[in-house]
Amino acid sequence: MSDQLNYNMEVIKVEKSRINDVDFNNLSFGKIFSDHMLICTYKNGAWNAPKIVPYQSLTLDPSTKIFHYGQAIFEGLKAYKDSNNDVFLFRPDENCKRLNISAKRMAIPELPEAYFMDGLKALLQVDKDWIPTQDGSSLYVRPFIFASGRGFHASPSDEYTFIIATAPSGPYFSGKVTVLIEEHYSRSANGGVGYAKAAGNYAGQFYPTQLAVEKGYNQVIWTDDNTHEYIEEAGAMNIFIRINDTLITSPTSDRILDGVTRKSIIDIAKSEGIPVDVRKITVSEVIEAANNGTLKEIFGAGTAAVVSPISGFGFKNKDYILPELENPYANKLKKRITDIQTNKAEDAFGWRVKV
Amino acid sequence: MSDQLNYNMEVIKVEKSRINDVDFNNLSFGKIFSDHMLICTYKNGAWNAPKIVPYQSLTLDPSTKIFHYGQAIFEGLKAYKDSNNDVFLFRPDENCKRLNISAKRMAIPELPEAYFMDGLKALLQVDKDWIPTQDGSSLYVRPFIFASGRGFHASPSDEYTFIIATAPSGPYFSGKVTVLIEEHYSRSANGGVGYAKAAGNYAGQFYPTQLAVEKGYNQVIWTDDNTHEYIEEAGAMNIFIRINDTLITSPTSDRILDGVTRKSIIDIAKSEGIPVDVRKITVSEVIEAANNGTLKEIFGAGTAAVVSPISGFGFKNKDYILPELENPYANKLKKRITDIQTNKAEDAFGWRVKV
Repeated sequence: MSDQLNYNMEVIKVEKSRINDVDFNNLSFGKIFSDHMLICTYKNGAWNAPKIVPYQSLTLDPSTKIFHYGQAIFEGLKAYKDSNNDVFLFRPDENCKRLNISAKRMAIPELPEAYFMDGLKALLQVDKDWIPTQDGSSLYVRPFIFASGRGFHASPSDEYTFIIATAPSGPYFSGKVTVLIEEHYSRSANGGVGYAKAAGNYAGQFYPTQLAVEKGYNQVIWTDDNTHEYIEEAGAMNIFIRINDTLITSPTSDRILDGVTRKSIIDIAKSEGIPVDVRKITVSEVIEAANNGTLKEIFGAGTAAVVSPISGFGFKNKDYILPELENPYANKLKKRITDIQTNKAEDAFGWRVKV
Repeated sequence: MSDQLNYNMEVIKVEKSRINDVDFNNLSFGKIFSDHMLICTYKNGAWNAPKIVPYQSLTLDPSTKIFHYGQAIFEGLKAYKDSNNDVFLFRPDENCKRLNISAKRMAIPELPEAYFMDGLKALLQVDKDWIPTQDGSSLYVRPFIFASGRGFHASPSDEYTFIIATAPSGPYFSGKVTVLIEEHYSRSANGGVGYAKAAGNYAGQFYPTQLAVEKGYNQVIWTDDNTHEYIEEAGAMNIFIRINDTLITSPTSDRILDGVTRKSIIDIAKSEGIPVDVRKITVSEVIEAANNGTLKEIFGAGTAAVVSPISGFGFKNKDYILPELENPYANKLKKRITDIQTNKAEDAFGWRVKV
């Protein structure tokens, strides 16, 4: 950990931990929060030094801009603990970079990298005991920035709040995941904010996802808003499609999030000798492959969902079932990435960061 | 006012009004808030009865979904007081309808109409003294709903908060308004949330608008995300373009907000005998009209901005100046709509609602 910041970081600890109230063997996703949080505010043109405080409620005026104009961004990453009780993060520098890419697009002042990186590490040291070690569990880490300035004028806020909160969590999805390829609704526009982890991108997906859930699917696979012919992403995950032995995923764009899991999976797959094709992929190509038997796998990749095999999908009122393979790429890739993340395997890529 | 709700509405008044601290002759837009607000919460599958309380801060857990997923919508309307001290609203039923249209798209439970309408009227009675009467001023009324449930799972909230806050306000724009016709960034996607007053739609416009402001413009005129060839809206206003004597405005769509001022201006213009053409309008058509002298006026129409004449616009690094007419449509239409709103003229349309 870099020293310059943490020597001076103010840490106010809880008087009594809540950890004994938590059943670590039955964790859901993101519903229980650790004892502390990092908080850092932007005022008068500068970010103030972050501090660690007990996890606590925020007091905000009703005119605070977040409520009206949704000026907010977030990141998601996970902390793991190995059998030696050492704590690891997975490519946190990528989250820091992307947070600032999102910040720029959403007219939020960029956060100093040290505030993010050192703040994150200091917080994990304080709440180290909250990192679960049960299989499939981890400490989900949620850095976010929101507009905390006041006023009804539709313009950027003059104050912001950066918080890192953490939540011991179990798997994001439970059971088989089915998806609906969307033909009407869209997630993002050319020249829009789809590549940013902007708060409003998520709210916009809720209704079409509800409609898909009512039809029996778990998630929507988004297509481009102009033709609905190109596969984009699944909102909480990027999408990988295996046709024959080749793994295909859409290139990132201003409509598609540059997922950390996505790019790690591409690198791992290549290192495993799996042919990877990063190119635009059409819905009709996927349907054709499903019909002629060359469609082998579809899976989502994202921090929360890790690698989520998709068992079937719907398109134009027809359902397609993916074959059950003996050794799917998804399992192999999921094992390799989680082994790297949890320090169970060598990390040839240099992605794991010890806290 | 309907009786069934207000007889039972709980009203907790401030101990001491802040009204004497306010300089009503120098009001900016949406920065000072009246003594009271209406609050109404959704829990366990139902909206609870609204109540009126002193304007006050909200206490929210850091995991509250509004901070992460931007699930929020709003409305904007204005209250006016005439020389008899009677209070008027302008087509508030339209705001109520649109709030619920936005709610549906953003997976927010629809609000009972009586909670909105009777709550609004009751609030205005309590804070009647806050309605400014100075020319160009009004009480800006901001109803909004945000996701107040907790948790990091990217899914709709299980709790919501509806608030109406009011702010005595001066004009939204001061001085001449110039706009940049956008060629790269976009406000909304086909099948997206552009027609909803969704919080995130506004945050997404801040950065491109900042870039336009740096170039010397006040606002962006958005174009379609696919070709950037069609004029859409200006984010805080719908756009009207006068070529020769015809007033042209884009039809609403899933990318364009169905503005209350927009549709009122269309009706008023028609009643004045002005030819109105609601149709798609291309940027090249506007440039051609500017070049051949048939482009007479451009103005924005919206609740906050009322009718805002645009004095010039930029496109492809070239600036176009609008002519200064002796009797522009904008002035005539602005006078007619504000006279109706402030009870200075007969309201043949039945839009004005006495509180």
